[in-house]
Amino acid sequence: MEPIILDGTVVAKQIKDGLKGRVENLRAKGITPCLATILVGGDPASETYVRMKGNACSRLGISSKRVHLPKETTTIALLDEINKLNEDPQIHGILLQHPVPGDIDERAAFEAIDLEKDVDGVTSATFGRTALGLSGFPSCTPKAIMTILDYYNITIEGQNAVVIGRSPILGKPVSALLLNRDATITTCHSKTKDIDKIVQNADIVVAAVGKPKFVQGSWIKQGAIILDAGYNEGNIGDVDYDACLTQASAITPVPGGVGPVTIATLLSHTVEAAERSAGKNE
Amino acid sequence: MEPIILDGTVVAKQIKDGLKGRVENLRAKGITPCLATILVGGDPASETYVRMKGNACSRLGISSKRVHLPKETTTIALLDEINKLNEDPQIHGILLQHPVPGDIDERAAFEAIDLEKDVDGVTSATFGRTALGLSGFPSCTPKAIMTILDYYNITIEGQNAVVIGRSPILGKPVSALLLNRDATITTCHSKTKDIDKIVQNADIVVAAVGKPKFVQGSWIKQGAIILDAGYNEGNIGDVDYDACLTQASAITPVPGGVGPVTIATLLSHTVEAAERSAGKNE
Repeated sequence: MEPIILDGTVVAKQIKDGLKGRVENLRAKGITPCLATILVGGDPASETYVRMKGNACSRLGISSKRVHLPKETTTIALLDEINKLNEDPQIHGILLQHPVPGDIDERAAFEAIDLEKDVDGVTSATFGRTALGLSGFPSCTPKAIMTILDYYNITIEGQNAVVIGRSPILGKPVSALLLNRDATITTCHSKTKDIDKIVQNADIVVAAVGKPKFVQGSWIKQGAIILDAGYNEGNIGDVDYDACLTQASAITPVPGGVGPVTIATLLSHTVEAAERSAGKNE
Repeated sequence: MEPIILDGTVVAKQIKDGLKGRVENLRAKGITPCLATILVGGDPASETYVRMKGNACSRLGISSKRVHLPKETTTIALLDEINKLNEDPQIHGILLQHPVPGDIDERAAFEAIDLEKDVDGVTSATFGRTALGLSGFPSCTPKAIMTILDYYNITIEGQNAVVIGRSPILGKPVSALLLNRDATITTCHSKTKDIDKIVQNADIVVAAVGKPKFVQGSWIKQGAIILDAGYNEGNIGDVDYDACLTQASAITPVPGGVGPVTIATLLSHTVEAAERSAGKNE
């Protein structure tokens, strides 16, 4: 049977279509949802990501405030900027583009983001709430993966899900979300032995390792579902797509898979944050 | 080869011996570390646990304040009590005995505990910090399991660890701690299929399911390490001890395994909380 291509652009369109009316309702009340994006330094890829996110906002009537800081910025100066945005009632969401230059304490910066404005789901408090099934904005890519699975009616309960990667904003939260949806979850990483054998046991594979074509076709059980959260230089995912395609029953392409849904999720969280803020002030 | 019995009483003694001088130092400064224990209702097992914890405190020169509330207590009244303890500078740690009566929102009560006094590691914020490798007091039983592994020099890195159970204060945090120590971690639960086959692949098995003798001897790979965090009526663990003993290379008994180390960990966290509080006021 031909594998299903899990088309993220279709999922993203559905999310964004659902937001339009909500943005209009907010604007009718005089509230424009606003996402602040913070970019430190001039990494070209990061500049592109931030610009894409800003453009996606504006197409939907969400405003964005771009804060661009020089690469020499100190941790304290960055924390000051974040605190200003925390206190600004016009700002509903804050995104600090990862990675920041090496001299900055990125974790301290993430932790400084107000929980209610943490639309990118980067704080440990948000992670804790996500993992324990409480309210909050989960990290966008993990949430996007769950949305894709649901859009395509893929069963999660009781499935063996293997996540490759354990970063704080991807591998760990996607493991937590899958566990809360009743998958049996195995989290692998650089110290994992015989990763091929572990992946061969997976009904659902999430590649979140940041290495181009890391996941081999021979690792994939016939009929497995593959979600590729990797996005490496030259539009290459973490999965050897052509080799895995022949094994999988469904797979996300790169580009056009998880990426567009991640951005739509960020927009969705920003609108929700604005709605919550409006609800409080009513 | 005879399996090693992982004797928790020895590990607990070492922890407590290490605390004596620290408690004396604090008392010399006029500070007596103090743990507040909150018990809601009259469940006999819970009463016993709270009394054991209070007695363990007093043997070490740690004071404890017992708050015993009637089973009709509302969530709001419980939150009020917790807030009083949060604000009381004489109290360094707060333990809300689990479970509370069903009408109370236990999660809301846990979340109300001040992060700096969350010596039992029950808040989502503490869980998030634990999982992302930041400072904080991890849940006591998960931390006790790690301490036992380290005391007996058991390798964690690169091992396949299978955790059976996914509760917020046991299964989830012990999975997170093992992952951060470079185990490949699989978390199983009631919806897991073919759990016997999954456990057969484990180098380290953590039983945290709350069902007497749930883990069968036939599930255990020859030479595996077994940690039994269960404590069911009649001093019975979650592991079929006699059957598993013949397979394991090391195993915790019940009682005398994880339990005593859990209590020692609680004392250790309370002393550390008092030290941090003293450091702030200097």
